[in-house]
Amino acid sequence: MINAALQHAARQHDSHQAELFDFLRLPSISTDPAYAAPTAATADWLAERLTAAGLENVRVIPTARHPLVYADWLHAGPDAPTVLIYGHYDVQPADPLELWDTPPFEPQVRDDYVYARGAADDKGQVYIHVKAAEAYLRAAGRLPLNVKFLIEGEEEIGSANLRAFIPHNRDLLAADSALVSDSAILGPDRPALVYSLRGNCHVLLDITGPSRDLHSGTYGGSINNPLNALGHLLAKLKNEFGHVMIPGFYDRVRPLSLEERELLAQFPISETEWLAQTGAPALWGEPEYTLVERIGARPTLDVTGMWGGYIGEGSKTILPSAAHAKISMRLVPDQEPAEIAALFEQFVRDTLPPSVRATVRVGGGSRAALIDRDTPPMRAAAAAYETTFGRPPVFMREGGSIPVVTDFGDQLGLPTVLMGFGLPGDRIHSPNERFYLPNFHKGIETSIRYLALLAAQSAADPA
Amino acid sequence: MINAALQHAARQHDSHQAELFDFLRLPSISTDPAYAAPTAATADWLAERLTAAGLENVRVIPTARHPLVYADWLHAGPDAPTVLIYGHYDVQPADPLELWDTPPFEPQVRDDYVYARGAADDKGQVYIHVKAAEAYLRAAGRLPLNVKFLIEGEEEIGSANLRAFIPHNRDLLAADSALVSDSAILGPDRPALVYSLRGNCHVLLDITGPSRDLHSGTYGGSINNPLNALGHLLAKLKNEFGHVMIPGFYDRVRPLSLEERELLAQFPISETEWLAQTGAPALWGEPEYTLVERIGARPTLDVTGMWGGYIGEGSKTILPSAAHAKISMRLVPDQEPAEIAALFEQFVRDTLPPSVRATVRVGGGSRAALIDRDTPPMRAAAAAYETTFGRPPVFMREGGSIPVVTDFGDQLGLPTVLMGFGLPGDRIHSPNERFYLPNFHKGIETSIRYLALLAAQSAADPA
Repeated sequence: MINAALQHAARQHDSHQAELFDFLRLPSISTDPAYAAPTAATADWLAERLTAAGLENVRVIPTARHPLVYADWLHAGPDAPTVLIYGHYDVQPADPLELWDTPPFEPQVRDDYVYARGAADDKGQVYIHVKAAEAYLRAAGRLPLNVKFLIEGEEEIGSANLRAFIPHNRDLLAADSALVSDSAILGPDRPALVYSLRGNCHVLLDITGPSRDLHSGTYGGSINNPLNALGHLLAKLKNEFGHVMIPGFYDRVRPLSLEERELLAQFPISETEWLAQTGAPALWGEPEYTLVERIGARPTLDVTGMWGGYIGEGSKTILPSAAHAKISMRLVPDQEPAEIAALFEQFVRDTLPPSVRATVRVGGGSRAALIDRDTPPMRAAAAAYETTFGRPPVFMREGGSIPVVTDFGDQLGLPTVLMGFGLPGDRIHSPNERFYLPNFHKGIETSIRYLALLAAQSAADPA
Repeated sequence: MINAALQHAARQHDSHQAELFDFLRLPSISTDPAYAAPTAATADWLAERLTAAGLENVRVIPTARHPLVYADWLHAGPDAPTVLIYGHYDVQPADPLELWDTPPFEPQVRDDYVYARGAADDKGQVYIHVKAAEAYLRAAGRLPLNVKFLIEGEEEIGSANLRAFIPHNRDLLAADSALVSDSAILGPDRPALVYSLRGNCHVLLDITGPSRDLHSGTYGGSINNPLNALGHLLAKLKNEFGHVMIPGFYDRVRPLSLEERELLAQFPISETEWLAQTGAPALWGEPEYTLVERIGARPTLDVTGMWGGYIGEGSKTILPSAAHAKISMRLVPDQEPAEIAALFEQFVRDTLPPSVRATVRVGGGSRAALIDRDTPPMRAAAAAYETTFGRPPVFMREGGSIPVVTDFGDQLGLPTVLMGFGLPGDRIHSPNERFYLPNFHKGIETSIRYLALLAAQSAADPA
């Protein structure tokens, strides 16, 4: 069965790629209300492809915002395990558009990479598993185990509606393990399994002062300037070495054990490589932690956007009435997003002077995830990677967030495997996002092998 | 002659107002290249009006950017004095447009105020003198003294081209005193003579970090964020009490004498009034100086615009590649704009860490002006105000800048009179800028009287 599926996938290289490009042409930007219609259309497109792949019970499930797409194939027999395959069809905004070499929603191939928004995050990765399931169903008429697909349209905005859906749909989503491909490996031939994800807490901060923009000459020096006040606040939120200064922020952060620090120290990423990837003039961060620890094991606070006053051509001599900042805090186990948001708001209230006012709006949050590295699905994933890539995977902590992974554990009791196929230079969330096409095909092979290994584990050891 | 002119002006109230409204309809936004054509058209319109008023040698003088408008009437005889009347036809940008109650370039009258961008700054004020000169020429066929008009289109962007023009055109601009109406009085019946203006030094600051926007999860904590770095820099540039922290910034600032502090203490502006005007939650500024001193006698540093990262709807989890700020420093005597710009740039270089890079662009500057309060033109102005308003003027320091006033003194040796007709609530540089129309007409009367008094002074005391 597995060989028939692998052969089928090999024959379909071109059509698989063509379908992926169709997927990439759909501008499913979840955060921007202007893209609500194409985001819904993307869910419909995906449902059609799942149906065409031979999956059953295909449903586009409406939510308060962007729909979920569900499909399954449950004929492997009562003793066969069930895997819940999760991914997301929404993408980040594409701007700044002028920095793209080719338009973000017109996929183009250069040097084996396909360039498009969402290519690696996450359309290229989630589609791997759709094609792996299809290969089994077309070539063998069946899958070696039961499969459920759950693909959402709000991962880039915090997964609020999916997270509300899960506790009310435990039967629909019941499974033995979850599989998520939404991360990167270390290089084209260096597979990696992520065992930790950071959480997120997103806040919008508005600082207001005078009731209108004032003449900076007539009033400057006598009225506090919200932009200058924002500067002072930002300087107090995080010190210059990267340490967040909000009282209580680190209270729940688990100290890194010596064992884990040793494990992370083996992570094969060099500072030179990191600089080359980012183009930054120098590395930076909490001096008492290594580069790998700063990324994966420490919480952060970053301004993701900021604006106020006159930002057109030339100058305007005003004392602006308002300043705005979007702030993202990446969290580690066991920080609680709601608690962090409350601490943030309290700090803003305690810190700003009475000459300005502030509004804090919480834009959603998710807890960090820490996954047991020694579970049967993790061992199956390692074996599938090793057969396909010729090399065992390394274990790594990932600095990004996949909000729903914590819910799979807490709400559904599922161990999750984070089996990535992206590369570090994929520029996810940045202009010129790309995905390495040879690993799209290797991903389909890895998925085919993983599903067989999961099924075999269960047959060998019926728990 | 003076009575004939006053009577003529009184009869022309409606036509004067209608012409002012035509002037206000022209969107002469000097800072924005998109408005270059309407700005040039405004100069042409003004030249036509000066010709129609009976002035001679009317010229639209091209510069590297926006033209100067010149006109004169020089038939008062060799012993009569000459006054150089200066003003500007350019205006500030109108945005944020959504905060205007009526469109900025469609003047509308409500409660005796005309609402339009440039109504008070400076179209309404400069046009007063055009109509005063016209009143003499129409009613009496002559003026009591020689008059030269010099009206520029770059005051809101630093007057660079006019300031380059002055030293090469000393003969054209030769006069005995200068008259400028581009400031506010204290209330509808409370005239004021400004004897000090702040200077300005404008800089644009770009801070760059990574070569592209990065994923805030993957890279956050290991790469410095230019927006956070900008926050730290802003916090260091000016402390929370309003004290600028750039070394050397205050080196040339003259200490306020006890006498001047006593004079300023008599300035009839209350903190309550200042709060009402600005709508700010509280007053603010250097604690060791009074409100009036903070505005007029102390230099400041204000961010006038700031932007970076994702500023669209929703959120985008990026670590942005760049942060930008426009900064205006208001200067007092004897600060030198070029020196201040150099100190600013040095401070930025010394302060920013090696993990980000900065570019500082100097956007122009002007020195502060300090005017002798006891000169014959100042006495004539006080008398003209008192006759028209029934009350003598107070002397005040103005926080704003009129760059060319220092050049009138340094380059042309002219004492300048700053005879304002605006009101504190005119919202210059803000949405809903307005001008109090009764004072437009009183301004014309004041100007008619001032020109006669200047001429009489000279006749009484031929120096």
